Amino acid sequence: MIEIELKGYANEKIFERVRATFEFMRKEIHEDIYFNHPCRDFSKTDEALRVRIKRFNGHFEALLTYKGPKIDELSKTRKEIEVNIDNVETYIELLHALGFKEVLTVKKTREKYYIEKGVTITLDEIEGLGKFVEIEKLAKDEKEVEKEVKRLLSILKSLGIERFERKSYLELLMEKLNLSEGS
Amino acid sequence: MIEIELKGYANEKIFERVRATFEFMRKEIHEDIYFNHPCRDFSKTDEALRVRIKRFNGHFEALLTYKGPKIDELSKTRKEIEVNIDNVETYIELLHALGFKEVLTVKKTREKYYIEKGVTITLDEIEGLGKFVEIEKLAKDEKEVEKEVKRLLSILKSLGIERFERKSYLELLMEKLNLSEGS
Repeated sequence: MIEIELKGYANEKIFERVRATFEFMRKEIHEDIYFNHPCRDFSKTDEALRVRIKRFNGHFEALLTYKGPKIDELSKTRKEIEVNIDNVETYIELLHALGFKEVLTVKKTREKYYIEKGVTITLDEIEGLGKFVEIEKLAKDEKEVEKEVKRLLSILKSLGIERFERKSYLELLMEKLNLSEGS
Repeated sequence: MIEIELKGYANEKIFERVRATFEFMRKEIHEDIYFNHPCRDFSKTDEALRVRIKRFNGHFEALLTYKGPKIDELSKTRKEIEVNIDNVETYIELLHALGFKEVLTVKKTREKYYIEKGVTITLDEIEGLGKFVEIEKLAKDEKEVEKEVKRLLSILKSLGIERFERKSYLELLMEKLNLSEGS
């Protein structure tokens, strides 16, 4: 599965516009623990390994996700491999034993809205970073990417978003905390 | 959890003795896929990472297990971290993406017998290696290890087992196939 994803800087006005326009799906609280690889630097290879603890509607869910390098110039499109995990503590112990190192935890409140089949938009409030909008579509192969990126971009622009961001929340937060050299 | 485990070479006579003495629990078919680490050689560090596909009584179960180095001179006692996995294919894809390399698959038929609370004995028939008996106990801390090893050893001896083996089936199979230098 390929995740076509675009992200833009937002503010309360843009959040209100999304809330008024699209169908509310749910509110989620994410705690994303990022790991670095024992022998390659994911910040250099543009990969990510994440344990996500997700809370919504009284549910609790945890996922382990690998994200490959971005495959498109404009968007955040990447290969994604995701599995459910039933015991967060044991998984983290396993990752440590294999030499994966915890980098940072990103805490986020996410409101999710439905645009059309397969397309969602989220209002993200990131602890320490502020407000963002993300639009996402899952695609089966890379041929669709270019066309879809243009369409998703025009939706974001129509909502008043002017500044886009290809960097992940992890990268932005690391730059802010001076944990990497940034760019 | 610490897995105290002893293994010995067996034959049909010893198998029959176990069958006649202890309470049958179940028969399992294991397919164990072993992985090597992207940047350390598990055969040198005495660790293991294994995806086990287990079939028994019409059930299907899959586990991902990390085994740390042996911590005792006589037995196969190790630290073990184990999680259930719900989608074998996706997990294997994830391991490959992270640089873990498949080494070998060990196929085994295992009959499991109950000795007493927390102690089991298994009759293992390994494809390409033959018959073995394993006795296992899960312990909470390392203090119990020495005493328990002696007891488990005396049970195996009383069954007629004379030759013990600390090497894993993976190591034995690799030596047989000349995939490592052996010892």
